[in-house]
Order: sequence, then structure tokens, then C-alpha cells
Amino acid sequence: MNENFLLASTSSLYGGQYLEYLTPHLQELFSGIRTLLFIPYARPSGISHESYTEKASAYFKILGIEVVGLHKFSNPQKAIEEAQAYFTGGGNTFLLTKMLHEHSLMELLATQVKTGKPYLGTSAGSNIGGLSIKTTNDMPIVYPPSFDAMGLIPYNLNPHYLDPDPTLKHNGETRETRIMEYLTQNNIPVLGLREGNWIRKKNQKLLIEGSCSTRIFEPGKVPYEVEAPYPLNF
Amino acid sequence: MNENFLLASTSSLYGGQYLEYLTPHLQELFSGIRTLLFIPYARPSGISHESYTEKASAYFKILGIEVVGLHKFSNPQKAIEEAQAYFTGGGNTFLLTKMLHEHSLMELLATQVKTGKPYLGTSAGSNIGGLSIKTTNDMPIVYPPSFDAMGLIPYNLNPHYLDPDPTLKHNGETRETRIMEYLTQNNIPVLGLREGNWIRKKNQKLLIEGSCSTRIFEPGKVPYEVEAPYPLNF
Repeated sequence: MNENFLLASTSSLYGGQYLEYLTPHLQELFSGIRTLLFIPYARPSGISHESYTEKASAYFKILGIEVVGLHKFSNPQKAIEEAQAYFTGGGNTFLLTKMLHEHSLMELLATQVKTGKPYLGTSAGSNIGGLSIKTTNDMPIVYPPSFDAMGLIPYNLNPHYLDPDPTLKHNGETRETRIMEYLTQNNIPVLGLREGNWIRKKNQKLLIEGSCSTRIFEPGKVPYEVEAPYPLNF
Repeated sequence: MNENFLLASTSSLYGGQYLEYLTPHLQELFSGIRTLLFIPYARPSGISHESYTEKASAYFKILGIEVVGLHKFSNPQKAIEEAQAYFTGGGNTFLLTKMLHEHSLMELLATQVKTGKPYLGTSAGSNIGGLSIKTTNDMPIVYPPSFDAMGLIPYNLNPHYLDPDPTLKHNGETRETRIMEYLTQNNIPVLGLREGNWIRKKNQKLLIEGSCSTRIFEPGKVPYEVEAPYPLNF
């Protein structure tokens, strides 16, 4: 399998424009692609599928790529099968996962991506690239039929990974505590992907890339930091 | 129904001891109670049921109340039916909810609390007092058979409510954004309960009490702040 995907922690860096920091990498990922299927189901801040697709369109127009929204198709399964490349935007991971499972699209999308068609995920769209959505940060606003995801990588992802803030006078759990709780119930390692980092699969290699270090959580080990680029062996 | 319950945002305030800030209110809630059934299923930081029960025991000993852990009973349904008072501690809401549903305890516990037996919840233990756990902050580390909760109040709770931090150079969603996303999918109002506040039902009255203001999110309305004590009409 010669997969070609990019799973980013975030769509935008602080002070930056939408997808701007990823531009050279997206030009490479989508090289030769003229039309992209956009999956708008995660609906950040509850915006409509239409508005969300317009946002993605505006960016990809600069790269000479046309964007079509999955919500436009009466047969979304056929749309996924026939598309040449994919982008799943961020928002609410539970809403995204529910829609994909209810329309029998999760496995279908994974199958297509595994044939080598380019796939971009940001935030929630990256979460579904892991084995399950059990390490999302999102609020469970809807009940999906399953937490299983595409399993493009043999890990779970925690996008927007945040270090504990020692100045915070607040007793909510830190991100690290939450992921350690996850590891008491699951045997799958977690990549704590800070904003500015992404997972890249190409030429049969799986790498963490980007500008930050990444925190890796493995069962039975003390969490540890790795610097990008970092090869993930599996 | 003359319910008698207290649903607290957090078990501890910054710099305070476990349950310390609630002591006078717990003395009133558990007046006349000698033995308390502790539900340790939420396992904060993955600690054992046994260790968690010991933590609760150490506190309640000061109030002259003996604590028994639900995990000790071979028949947890019978234990719930026979108990005179309850405390569900915080931790992971998904783990708690999964355990309660899998052992057919969620509705049973609700039924008992509705007869007037005193109930204390903190954090995850308060979340399950709402209509569903769809506004928990916790990570979905396990897949519960349902997100339905006890419905002691006609609201959902968001414990540990946090205001947006304008200094944060981070693109993860704010708590308010998450709750507004929830309201695009659900018609149930949400109480954003800051640490230091709790919901109290006694003498047929439902009140928000505590030291902070509370942010209320209702479908179709701009979120608004109320000062405690605040009567919830329903």
C-alpha cells in the first residue's frame, strides 16, 4: 500500500490564515489533483455544510484545486468511491464520526485512502485517521454508533495537544491526565500532536513532521518527547 | 418528590483539601446519615476502586459517616436499593456511565434518589445528574452503551466551566464554543458550573449555590450569567 496522507493537529496556527502554514506540504500532497472531495460533517461552531465547504474552496482555489462538498451528493458512498482526493475539516469529532458511520462511509473512506488517493485531515479530520476517536478533545454532543475510526495509522491521535499550565487555578484534568486515564483502559499508543505538527505518510514511510516536539504516550511507559521529523516504526 | 441532592462542579477548590469547601453543606445534606454508598467507578487518574473509596472514607470519617464502596458488593443493584445515601466521585464520565449502564444501575440510582435519599455528586458524579453526559469535558476513553444519565435536573451540566483565555495562543475550541456546538444538535439547556458552585435540591426547590456566577446556555438565546443563589424554575 502506497498511502499518501497528511493528518494535521490544526488547520490554522495562532495569527495565521486557514491552512496557510501547510501550503507547501499540501501542494506536494495534492500534486496532480484537480478536484478534491471535502467532508464538512464536523461543522466547527455549528456552521453549515455549505459555508464550511466555501471556506475550504476559497483556500484551495489558490492552489488551482476545485473543492466539492460531500453534502451535495445524493449518493455519498458513490462520491467517495469516485473522488480522487479527500479533505476532512475539523470541528466536532463526534458529529463527524456519527455521520460517517450512519452513512457507512468510515470504512469506505479508509479503503479508498489505502489505495493511495491523497487524504488531508485537520483536527477532527485527523482524529478519524487513528484507530478510534477515544482521544479526541471534543464534547460528545451526539452519540455515534461506534468510536471506531479509519485506522490509517496504528495509533490514536490527540490533536491540539496542550501542556499542563502550572499557573492555572483550576481542577479540571490536564490533557496528560486524560490520556493516562485512556491508557488504563486501552492498549493503543497515543500521539500528542501539538499545533504546528502533523503525521505524513508517503513513499511507504510514516513520519511526524512540523515545528514542535511531539509527546508520545505508550502503555506501561513514561510519556516521552520526540523531535520532528520523527519516523514512526510499525 | 422531595429530592435532596447536591451536584458540585468540583470536589476541591484550588489550594483546598478534598471536599473541604463543601463541609457545612454536606453536614446538612447527610444529616442523620450514618453510612454512605460510594460509587468509585469514575477512577480519576486511573486509581483503583479501593484507593478511591479510601479517599472518600478519610473525609467522611470527620463527619462521623462510614463509607462503603459499591465495588465491594457482589450484587450492586441490591446495594443501591438498600443504601440510605450516595456519593459518586469525579473522574472519567465515560467510564462511570459505561459501568452504571452495563450493570443496569443508572435508572435504579435515579429512582432511589428521587425517593429523597441524599445524593452527592462531584464533577463526573454531577454530570450524571443531568439529562445526558453530552456536555462532559472528559475524554471518551471507553464506549458506553448510551449517553443518557439520571436526569435529576431538566438540564445538562458542564462542570469545571472555564472562561475563554484571551492570552492563549492555541486553536482548540473554547468551552463556550463546544457548548454552542452542543446546542446546534440538542434542545436541552446547559448550566456552565464554575468551580465553587453547585446545584442543590431540597424542600422542593432547585437552586444554584456557591461563590461564583454561573453561565447558562439555552437554545436560541445568547448565553447569560446568573449570580448564586439562583432559583432554577422548571
